[in-house]
Amino acid sequence: MKHLLSMEDLTSEDIFRLINQAEAIERGDVPAFLKQLFAANIFLEPSTRTKNSFIVAERRLGLEVLDVSGENSSLTKGESLYDTVKTLYSISANLCIVRHSQNGILREIADQVDVPIINAGDGTGQHPTQCLLDLYTIYQEFHTFQGLKVAIIGDIKHSRVARSNSEALRKLGAEVYYVSRPEWQDEGISENYVSIDEAVRLADVVMLLRIQRERHETAADENNYLYTYGLTKDREAIMNKNSIIMHPGPFNRGVEIDSEVVDSSKSRIFKQMTNGVTMRMAIITALLKEEL
Amino acid sequence: MKHLLSMEDLTSEDIFRLINQAEAIERGDVPAFLKQLFAANIFLEPSTRTKNSFIVAERRLGLEVLDVSGENSSLTKGESLYDTVKTLYSISANLCIVRHSQNGILREIADQVDVPIINAGDGTGQHPTQCLLDLYTIYQEFHTFQGLKVAIIGDIKHSRVARSNSEALRKLGAEVYYVSRPEWQDEGISENYVSIDEAVRLADVVMLLRIQRERHETAADENNYLYTYGLTKDREAIMNKNSIIMHPGPFNRGVEIDSEVVDSSKSRIFKQMTNGVTMRMAIITALLKEEL
Amino acid sequence: MKHLLSMEDLTSEDIFRLINQAEAIERGDVPAFLKQLFAANIFLEPSTRTKNSFIVAERRLGLEVLDVSGENSSLTKGESLYDTVKTLYSISANLCIVRHSQNGILREIADQVDVPIINAGDGTGQHPTQCLLDLYTIYQEFHTFQGLKVAIIGDIKHSRVARSNSEALRKLGAEVYYVSRPEWQDEGISENYVSIDEAVRLADVVMLLRIQRERHETAADENNYLYTYGLTKDREAIMNKNSIIMHPGPFNRGVEIDSEVVDSSKSRIFKQMTNGVTMRMAIITALLKEEL
Repeated sequence: MKHLLSMEDLTSEDIFRLINQAEAIERGDVPAFLKQLFAANIFLEPSTRTKNSFIVAERRLGLEVLDVSGENSSLTKGESLYDTVKTLYSISANLCIVRHSQNGILREIADQVDVPIINAGDGTGQHPTQCLLDLYTIYQEFHTFQGLKVAIIGDIKHSRVARSNSEALRKLGAEVYYVSRPEWQDEGISENYVSIDEAVRLADVVMLLRIQRERHETAADENNYLYTYGLTKDREAIMNKNSIIMHPGPFNRGVEIDSEVVDSSKSRIFKQMTNGVTMRMAIITALLKEEL
Repeated sequence: MKHLLSMEDLTSEDIFRLINQAEAIERGDVPAFLKQLFAANIFLEPSTRTKNSFIVAERRLGLEVLDVSGENSSLTKGESLYDTVKTLYSISANLCIVRHSQNGILREIADQVDVPIINAGDGTGQHPTQCLLDLYTIYQEFHTFQGLKVAIIGDIKHSRVARSNSEALRKLGAEVYYVSRPEWQDEGISENYVSIDEAVRLADVVMLLRIQRERHETAADENNYLYTYGLTKDREAIMNKNSIIMHPGPFNRGVEIDSEVVDSSKSRIFKQMTNGVTMRMAIITALLKEEL
Repeated sequence: MKHLLSMEDLTSEDIFRLINQAEAIERGDVPAFLKQLFAANIFLEPSTRTKNSFIVAERRLGLEVLDVSGENSSLTKGESLYDTVKTLYSISANLCIVRHSQNGILREIADQVDVPIINAGDGTGQHPTQCLLDLYTIYQEFHTFQGLKVAIIGDIKHSRVARSNSEALRKLGAEVYYVSRPEWQDEGISENYVSIDEAVRLADVVMLLRIQRERHETAADENNYLYTYGLTKDREAIMNKNSIIMHPGPFNRGVEIDSEVVDSSKSRIFKQMTNGVTMRMAIITALLKEEL
């Protein structure tokens, strides 16, 4: 594994190897690198959660952190992402983490650069580290993916989380169901659409997506969304005993999920964040294994 | 002490314990934590001095630093401060430092979170770390607060520094006097208003507040302020021999204080900044004492 | 050497001492400071390359990094650069790196502050660390400056790189030639203007400057620039066998230089970036030598 650009590049074996590495780190077995290494975080779209999760992962592994964000960088002078990555490599970056608004842009440059790249979310495309932390969270709970029923709920079409998770889960043997407004259904996915009430009854994992509040015009509209497509307290009550609730964050309390449900015993939403650090440590370790 | 939200929460004993801790740190006795800890600096209003003072304090204590500022965070996506703090705690923040524009917002969330919070200034409310560094500066000079005469000069009404310091100093036995334009007097304080000339004659500590330059329409207006309410060279000359001058910064040379007075032998303005790092190290040590 | 403000302040001996220090660092002889030191990076104009180059240099030397950028600092409250530097010194900065839009501003404050200052680019004035890394890159290649022919090409008038390099190279015994549109010629330099085709034939070092794309109205205009003043593949082909190509970055592929030429065997453009870290480590070491 030279880069981590997309879940499509990973075999099931790759995924289980990363999960095993994450489990080892969680048990306290943190890898130590032999020399000072630099990670460059190139975040060209805003992000609190993902960026700070990477920073914590990097610092827990002893890496130095370079911060390149959109507003203050010379990317505003027209320099391309390719040259930014090459520049950072030239000044000693051993790893680049990139969040970008343009789908697939990392694929264009990956073959031409010598430094490992991690895709931290590109447009509406892929978000593989989020997917891997989700898989880790599910595996922690059920110790298998085979035959698990996962319901993905929300704006399927515009969500990079939905796309990455959906592909990976099916590859690993899970059954994936979808709940979505007709206009948010994805053209690539024609089957397994169910109602929210069917979904909460059948699913082992209820995976919500973030609703873009800017698409909702009124509070009434938001309220309506919660009752027709969201996870209310009443729906949580009819979930299976061992089922769990996931959300990639940032969540909107009272829009796609009842506020109390966020903090309920079925919720793994904050656990996902903790797992994000651990899984990112595992991914970085895998990409920099020659430096161990 | 779980959080540091307001001076009101501290007893006189608490204050002296922090001053003693700061003195120990200044003598070179810097506490060492047993494991890697993370401090999250959540600054939702701009600040050079306070933020960098915290960063230096954190790094001198060996803490890792996470930087969450208003513009780049997912707070712009509507996520609440409560969920931001919970998110940072989930990704391993051991301490949150928060500057926010809204008075009292930290009190609302403090009971619900497991991570210690330090108020780094909320709206026109409290700014307890500034107050404690001011108290430390005064104590270094006079070794007591009992009977000390402190004059607070400027926009009393809109200043969180004035409010915090005023309460704490009176609790510790100091006499507090005020100099202010009528429209900047605080409704909660009806007595002890004096003229600037009386103030400089009587005070052991002349404590200036920052003037919001945006309220002054012309250079003539600013000039006028200096002569009617500011600390000119002539007024400095009539101060008592052992009296000192303080200002929380950032100061405006020539507006509330003559430029030469900033750098005079009576000025403790830059000493306050140095003390700010030391006192913040003492506060962080007190909040994280279980990690020692 | 107390500060590094301008190439004019350095003797030839100073320059060779810094080059020797950089060579030692490149061989792996990295200086170690005895205590925790803080560097404050005060970047009041955007910069990816220079700022991150300093951060890497600082971290490789074990320095702590404080980041003061224009937008978030209290400089927006009218505080002067002088007081910012004094503030950072008060909270323990051992070194200030400053990029500022105003020519010569550092000279005004340098005598009044106790902390070493490095000029990281002031307006259209000086950019001495860029100059020193360029000199280091040339010296690595030719092991002398005496009699070397260097052609500086582009917007001479508005380039701080052109000014710093031109003076330093002549002091060290090089012959400097210029290629520029008439309106971009500098009033202080009246001779040695040649055509681009003469320049590439005669020069040992072809040093391109960045073209401000905002001055070019159309793609056709840019294309025209490349053919009349830029380094095309055809021009690269007629360069001398051992000649090298330099550019301070960020470069515009296809505007002042053909994209393929950027990555050609004659190009030292990425090597310059690597050398930038090494030379900045050498400069910081020289300024903080009392802490070794």
